[in-house]
Amino acid sequence: MKFIQSVKNPKVKQWKKLLTKKEREKTGQYLIEGFHLVEMALSQKEHIVEVIVSEEVVLPAHWNMDGVDMTVITHDVAKALGDTETVQGVFAVCRKRETEESLTGHAYLLIDAVQDPGNIGTMIRTADAAGIDGVILGEGCADLYNPKVLRSAQGSHFHLPVVSMPLTEAIQQLKEQQVPILGTALQQAVDYRQAAITDSFALLVGNEGSGVNPELLKETDSNVFIPIYGESESLNVAVAAGVLLYHFKHTLKNV
Amino acid sequence: MKFIQSVKNPKVKQWKKLLTKKEREKTGQYLIEGFHLVEMALSQKEHIVEVIVSEEVVLPAHWNMDGVDMTVITHDVAKALGDTETVQGVFAVCRKRETEESLTGHAYLLIDAVQDPGNIGTMIRTADAAGIDGVILGEGCADLYNPKVLRSAQGSHFHLPVVSMPLTEAIQQLKEQQVPILGTALQQAVDYRQAAITDSFALLVGNEGSGVNPELLKETDSNVFIPIYGESESLNVAVAAGVLLYHFKHTLKNV
Repeated sequence: MKFIQSVKNPKVKQWKKLLTKKEREKTGQYLIEGFHLVEMALSQKEHIVEVIVSEEVVLPAHWNMDGVDMTVITHDVAKALGDTETVQGVFAVCRKRETEESLTGHAYLLIDAVQDPGNIGTMIRTADAAGIDGVILGEGCADLYNPKVLRSAQGSHFHLPVVSMPLTEAIQQLKEQQVPILGTALQQAVDYRQAAITDSFALLVGNEGSGVNPELLKETDSNVFIPIYGESESLNVAVAAGVLLYHFKHTLKNV
Repeated sequence: MKFIQSVKNPKVKQWKKLLTKKEREKTGQYLIEGFHLVEMALSQKEHIVEVIVSEEVVLPAHWNMDGVDMTVITHDVAKALGDTETVQGVFAVCRKRETEESLTGHAYLLIDAVQDPGNIGTMIRTADAAGIDGVILGEGCADLYNPKVLRSAQGSHFHLPVVSMPLTEAIQQLKEQQVPILGTALQQAVDYRQAAITDSFALLVGNEGSGVNPELLKETDSNVFIPIYGESESLNVAVAAGVLLYHFKHTLKNV
């Protein structure tokens, strides 16, 4: 076990660099923070490069640290490393997962240019909860390994396939597998409760302000919308994805 | 029209104080930021005390500023006043709305101790979209007039009644009106798709970590849960509220 006391230590600098997308792409590694995420990473140790713990932290007794490389840091180093205001003092450097890019499942969530990291993370968590086979992050989406995305996803990325790829390519692959593409749009779209419920589908949601790119909507098999009954102009994209995923995956089935 | 160039101007200090709950309660006023929110406030001018605009900002031509008190500020003052990283340079001081505390509608969302401002705001926006009659913020919830709550609510608080009151009191009132209280819980609860759909209901959702207070669950008429099909432990509370509000308010009806 190592002990690091200075924020200027090269290892600390290297860990902090992992908060940038550039460094994550260069090294294939990323940093996670907090008891919940580190515990989930420990359940599949192949994810973990090393665990980093602030000196005042007592690790939960049930954590199995066998064979895990561990470094202890001072509280000041932990604060420097933390991305949140209230630092929990537990971190891990993880390896990015090699994700299969061939889409062979029956239900997917395709995300077009959603920029808010919290929305991306919440949709990954929701897709996992709904039992979807995977999430595709198209161009313009927040990076999966952004700390805010990981925090909102609450560890779902450890077991749910999340693939970054151009959506035109994903749609092409899914169509070859006869998976209907279900767009979300306000025009040329039907109330979601009137759309056919099929065993397989790929739901396509879009940017917070502008929705799904019209070029992608040309490729969909049908489009749905969620009616607005009050005076708000729209729903948050993660809420809309939740309503639609549960509706299309679970309405009137498995009850 | 006034022009303010210094961040040390007493008016600027007073506006900044409105970012604290204490000052908002003292004055009955709050600060909003951004084109969307200010435009919504302008549509009901009784909300507005004054509008504050950064010198470089061109106001949209369709905004009707008749009779609105306006102050121009420098870009540096705007940055000092802004709560977000990318300041839009448009603000308004608004009056808190006097909300009727008697609950005479048929559908409500009751929120118990949800702490994240983004979750509170997103639920207000969702409740508005779903055509619910009002939102009740119980003890322990983030303050409605917190800038992050207002940003996520996207102006829905201007027309949807949002009342802060103890939930025991709200439940009491609703029961007197024969509105069934529908709790969310993991134990002694049924799959939401098996629960009866009634014309009126009050949906009760709870804290991100611990759920609804067990004392409040003793007062509910029935409890529901949303099944988790994957490996995530739960849904985000705002996503869950969205799935349930649309299900109970709109499934199989109005289609």
